[in-house]
Amino acid sequence: MEPPTKDIKKIGIAGLGLIGGSISLELQELGHTIYGLVNSTSNLERAKARGLTQFVDTDPKILSNCQIVILALPISQLINPSQELVNALSTDSVVTDVGSVKAPVLNVWEKLHPNFVASHPMAGTTQAGIEAGQTGLFKGRPWVATPTNNTNPEALEVIHKLVMSLGSQWITANAEEHDQAVAMISHLPVIISAALLKAAGKASDQSDTSLAKILCSSGFADTTRVGGGNPNLGVDMASYNTKPILDVLHKYRVSLRKLEEIINTSKWDKLKEELEDSQRIRSDFLL
Amino acid sequence: MEPPTKDIKKIGIAGLGLIGGSISLELQELGHTIYGLVNSTSNLERAKARGLTQFVDTDPKILSNCQIVILALPISQLINPSQELVNALSTDSVVTDVGSVKAPVLNVWEKLHPNFVASHPMAGTTQAGIEAGQTGLFKGRPWVATPTNNTNPEALEVIHKLVMSLGSQWITANAEEHDQAVAMISHLPVIISAALLKAAGKASDQSDTSLAKILCSSGFADTTRVGGGNPNLGVDMASYNTKPILDVLHKYRVSLRKLEEIINTSKWDKLKEELEDSQRIRSDFLL
Repeated sequence: MEPPTKDIKKIGIAGLGLIGGSISLELQELGHTIYGLVNSTSNLERAKARGLTQFVDTDPKILSNCQIVILALPISQLINPSQELVNALSTDSVVTDVGSVKAPVLNVWEKLHPNFVASHPMAGTTQAGIEAGQTGLFKGRPWVATPTNNTNPEALEVIHKLVMSLGSQWITANAEEHDQAVAMISHLPVIISAALLKAAGKASDQSDTSLAKILCSSGFADTTRVGGGNPNLGVDMASYNTKPILDVLHKYRVSLRKLEEIINTSKWDKLKEELEDSQRIRSDFLL
Repeated sequence: MEPPTKDIKKIGIAGLGLIGGSISLELQELGHTIYGLVNSTSNLERAKARGLTQFVDTDPKILSNCQIVILALPISQLINPSQELVNALSTDSVVTDVGSVKAPVLNVWEKLHPNFVASHPMAGTTQAGIEAGQTGLFKGRPWVATPTNNTNPEALEVIHKLVMSLGSQWITANAEEHDQAVAMISHLPVIISAALLKAAGKASDQSDTSLAKILCSSGFADTTRVGGGNPNLGVDMASYNTKPILDVLHKYRVSLRKLEEIINTSKWDKLKEELEDSQRIRSDFLL
């Protein structure tokens, strides 16, 4: 591996969906040349039309000469990468991913590449796919790397600099602790929000007027945003972070049951305390 | 009651919190003169300093000469109004409220005033109190009236015109159906969102790193917005819409349990179907 240069120019991105496409647009603005890998000729045409990258192909070999390669693929593809993709990556390159689960990804990729750095930008919208990439997605957002004892410190530093150039907040953490934390603050919200949509959908089927549909307001929109997101992302997170998600679902059911019991027994002073506590926790989390 | 004039000028607003203050700012811009009732001298000073109304007092008599009076009070005060407030309202005036629960309010106010119209603007922010009022809050938002057989049609028309002048979408509905619908799309989100905050707060107390606090992203912020809102509003809605809320909480627990069971048994195809369904329901609700 060559030492990181001040001005890295050739960057490969495998996958040009929301995250990959957004990274690509930002890095182009910073003067880098981006080599994009897409999975279909229709995505190739759309990537060209949107100017997502300077070069784009469906053949992983497009990544061969890149100094940095960002794997912005669904977790399922990260965990089971094609042999063509693995073969296309130069051992001189630095490789990172953007998956929302880190321990299973490290498990696979530390064996596949000497300069692999596991990372996860904490950013998103409800959009997905080749049309979803946008600039400004990462500015001020945390971007977590989960280095291990096997991680090449120079490779870590290359990714660190790249992430800082996108305006993100660089954080390093233990992979298992990361996976537990995202289960609570990122994956659990998807499940509880999807459950709200399912309950509301069922209730409105039963109603003649579907008044709920007319009345739903910003509160419903916000609370259901992540539950109405990309189903494939939801399946990926649940299938690759199953144990932490089941743990936090259990904690959540206990919290919910407690509030229900307070309402059921008309303990309004107690409910006020609980909601004051919720308000305080939110300020504490979202300072 | 006089017939509604084209250009109603004197409007009273009891309570200048988020909703009352926002209505007041809008109506002033439309050229009306607003008479505000507040509950303390400190709120009186702040209302004056912010220019929330042209006239403001802590004495309900300030509402006596108004052609329209909007009761923008907490539900608990709407349900148990002070005798001074009731006495201050001219029987010639048209009176409406903005409470998020309609059947209990109608129960009280239909007996108290001949020209009472129950209504509910579907709008909000996390802010509350005398500093919270803002312009533009109601534009394009639904504003539900729940007339009964006892409602004076002329009074209803006065409120209809007023609401249209704020740029809201006018809807009429049965009060009980309204209360069931808002339990699902407005009150249940508060409970499930507060439960998420409580679960996350507990989990982060147990962690040394509190990584969850650092990582929490727009998904957590959106899903918890209403659960971190005004605790008094939460208590009001739960205590005055208890039965509908317990009904939807039951439906919600069934939905959540189903998703948990699917994850627990690794039925990923089924999870994908469920999340696709959630996505479809959300588009359907938030068209």
